[in-house]
Amino acid sequence: MIKAGLLGLGTVGTGVVRIVEGHQEDLQRKTGSPISIEKILVQDRSKSRAVSIDKDKLTENAWDVIDNPDIQVVIEVMGGIEPAKTYILSALEKGKHIVTANKDLMALHGAEILAKAAANGCDVFYEASVAGGIPIIRTLNEGFSSDRITKIMGIVNGTTNYILTKMSQEGAAYGDVLKEAQALGYAESDPTSDVEGLDAARKMTILATLGFHAEVSLQDVKVKGISAISKEDIQYGKRLGYTVKLLGIAERQDDHISVSVQPTMVKNSHPLASVNGVFNAVYVYGEAVGETMFYGPGAGELPTATSIVADLVAVVRNLKLGVNGRELFTPYKEKKLKSDEQISSKNFILLHVEDKAGVLAQITQIFAKHDVSLESVLQHPNVSNPAAEIIIITHDANQASMNKVLSEFESMDVIHQIKSVYRVEG
Amino acid sequence: MIKAGLLGLGTVGTGVVRIVEGHQEDLQRKTGSPISIEKILVQDRSKSRAVSIDKDKLTENAWDVIDNPDIQVVIEVMGGIEPAKTYILSALEKGKHIVTANKDLMALHGAEILAKAAANGCDVFYEASVAGGIPIIRTLNEGFSSDRITKIMGIVNGTTNYILTKMSQEGAAYGDVLKEAQALGYAESDPTSDVEGLDAARKMTILATLGFHAEVSLQDVKVKGISAISKEDIQYGKRLGYTVKLLGIAERQDDHISVSVQPTMVKNSHPLASVNGVFNAVYVYGEAVGETMFYGPGAGELPTATSIVADLVAVVRNLKLGVNGRELFTPYKEKKLKSDEQISSKNFILLHVEDKAGVLAQITQIFAKHDVSLESVLQHPNVSNPAAEIIIITHDANQASMNKVLSEFESMDVIHQIKSVYRVEG
Repeated sequence: MIKAGLLGLGTVGTGVVRIVEGHQEDLQRKTGSPISIEKILVQDRSKSRAVSIDKDKLTENAWDVIDNPDIQVVIEVMGGIEPAKTYILSALEKGKHIVTANKDLMALHGAEILAKAAANGCDVFYEASVAGGIPIIRTLNEGFSSDRITKIMGIVNGTTNYILTKMSQEGAAYGDVLKEAQALGYAESDPTSDVEGLDAARKMTILATLGFHAEVSLQDVKVKGISAISKEDIQYGKRLGYTVKLLGIAERQDDHISVSVQPTMVKNSHPLASVNGVFNAVYVYGEAVGETMFYGPGAGELPTATSIVADLVAVVRNLKLGVNGRELFTPYKEKKLKSDEQISSKNFILLHVEDKAGVLAQITQIFAKHDVSLESVLQHPNVSNPAAEIIIITHDANQASMNKVLSEFESMDVIHQIKSVYRVEG
Repeated sequence: MIKAGLLGLGTVGTGVVRIVEGHQEDLQRKTGSPISIEKILVQDRSKSRAVSIDKDKLTENAWDVIDNPDIQVVIEVMGGIEPAKTYILSALEKGKHIVTANKDLMALHGAEILAKAAANGCDVFYEASVAGGIPIIRTLNEGFSSDRITKIMGIVNGTTNYILTKMSQEGAAYGDVLKEAQALGYAESDPTSDVEGLDAARKMTILATLGFHAEVSLQDVKVKGISAISKEDIQYGKRLGYTVKLLGIAERQDDHISVSVQPTMVKNSHPLASVNGVFNAVYVYGEAVGETMFYGPGAGELPTATSIVADLVAVVRNLKLGVNGRELFTPYKEKKLKSDEQISSKNFILLHVEDKAGVLAQITQIFAKHDVSLESVLQHPNVSNPAAEIIIITHDANQASMNKVLSEFESMDVIHQIKSVYRVEG
């Protein structure tokens, strides 16, 4: 009998209990051992629960789990940095293996936790920390262990994808859809972490570190959220064959990497363009394998618990084989970040300009001056809007040149407003 | 230094050599050991090769690989049943671990090979046997180890998906697209195994066995290919919002399973509908995780080699940990097949009928008699075609009832032809 302890009994913790109890026979077949959740840290023992649990298993004292000599695996589903970090480090010191769904903790303190695990011969698994039910961490560590990953693009935040899908399908405004998402429980009452891209940035930190074998930190991620996206941007994108998605993008070229989270115009033929609603997907490009994509639920009680219990199965298999802590995937490459000159992409630019002859020539000259070539130019795209608008899609251009172009635009009288600038993918 | 032997140096074997040599440093970091391809079985040592290889490594005698005491891992990329099977069983008897891309062998003799591996404490990995570069076998074995899979639907044959994509996008006829695919090397000169669904059936045998933990055999798979699909079927599907795909479908319900390969009308909103060209994708539904999909290249030198070398990495890690042969995933459930009464799906039926009053009433009565309810009926769908045509889409109906309906249709004078019957998904 392998005994596990659970820190937290919210939505995901409840799912873990359900799966471990409901799938007991299968788990035993797969691991050779019965598995039991022995102690569970809760805030309030007297609260009624969605699953029937022996009250003796509940405790309001974390140390009843961490110090418990019978418990070999600690599953942390509390979230947040503290006290989760202290609990996990203490459990590792006591030789307990860790399964966690905590993206904040792994993004900010993953290196410290993995080092402590290595020092104590312990496993740390965190599949559920990114993209809920999609086994993307396993895929990067094992499925693509033979390949060199050059690009990871992820729709890794369900809230923003739900909002953008609704805006796109219903032509609705950001503020209205956000309110609706809050009413449905798809967005928090304070939605900042989701809509400003911070949640996605944490997940991309984890994926980039695993994909590129270099220790990417949260500060390396350039982040832009979705709150400034207008109905018009989405409509114009649609007319040109693009869907606006909040993408985390991690790229590597000659050992230099860049990581960002930003609203992106994704070509409709790209597999990420049709990932809708609260679903997540991670697109991985490997030098040898080429294009792949992994799609599934990014959150939710049972999907997230599926990943957690799969990690628990992995720990138990390792216990049976006596090889815990031997397969920690830690970065072995030096991190070198790309400069703006090395970051390159297509761009979508919407300008409000003075409606007179020669303006387009002036604008295209600025692009030429900075060596940015253009894929398409659409003047007056909106017949029902009298304002002079120009949409430009560039070929691949480096960020430094684009910044120079945009900075010149800002000082040009004929350009009233740089309405929107999006990266373009696919 | 871990030494591997290679049986076969065709397209995929060449890719394996390229990746093992090109990624040597990364592989060493990931496994803690340099890896070398020590001996390679070829048909003709004197033939010129796409990669530069020390001639001393080439042999025309398989036993130079299998009997070689330095070789710990044998990679089989010859394909076909014999002599591959004899070689693999002999290598296992000598305690060598196996990595194979051989779907035919694993579909037909997987149980025997895995039993021999278990008896000898050896690993057998075969990720590349299904869906080339997509790590779907790992995902079923490990990513979803905690879940109960109830449905696996796969586009697992690139040739047929290429043909159907072209037929759909260009309105071309099957025969013309097949010829084009043959010219481009996407289809064999004898395309039977691909277009009649046999290749897909072998892959579904492997996926169903892993997903449902019961030993599914090739004979259990009901197979129908794509050669009878007409331009009209595809056009009608399109108009109703469906895309025709050759799907492998494995389903489980209350421990009863069914496996089939058949052309299927897939609703355009379903993620499988937009998998185009030679790409593969496997859709997996788990009781807890819900909907997931894994997308990528299904064949090709480097994508397939990526999976093979990932398996090689897994063998080498196990060697380092001393745990080879301890994690063979073998079926532990009794196989119970669904009867026709237990297999249920929506159906698309295209009928050519006599153009007179009351025909539709006669037809709908037959459905009602056998308890098949209808989702939609479209009469005279094709205005430019004077023949009286009726398209019916049923609600979920069991196969036994559907067979009764179709059998009554065959004897009805007012029905000139049952033009097409497709399963409907999504």
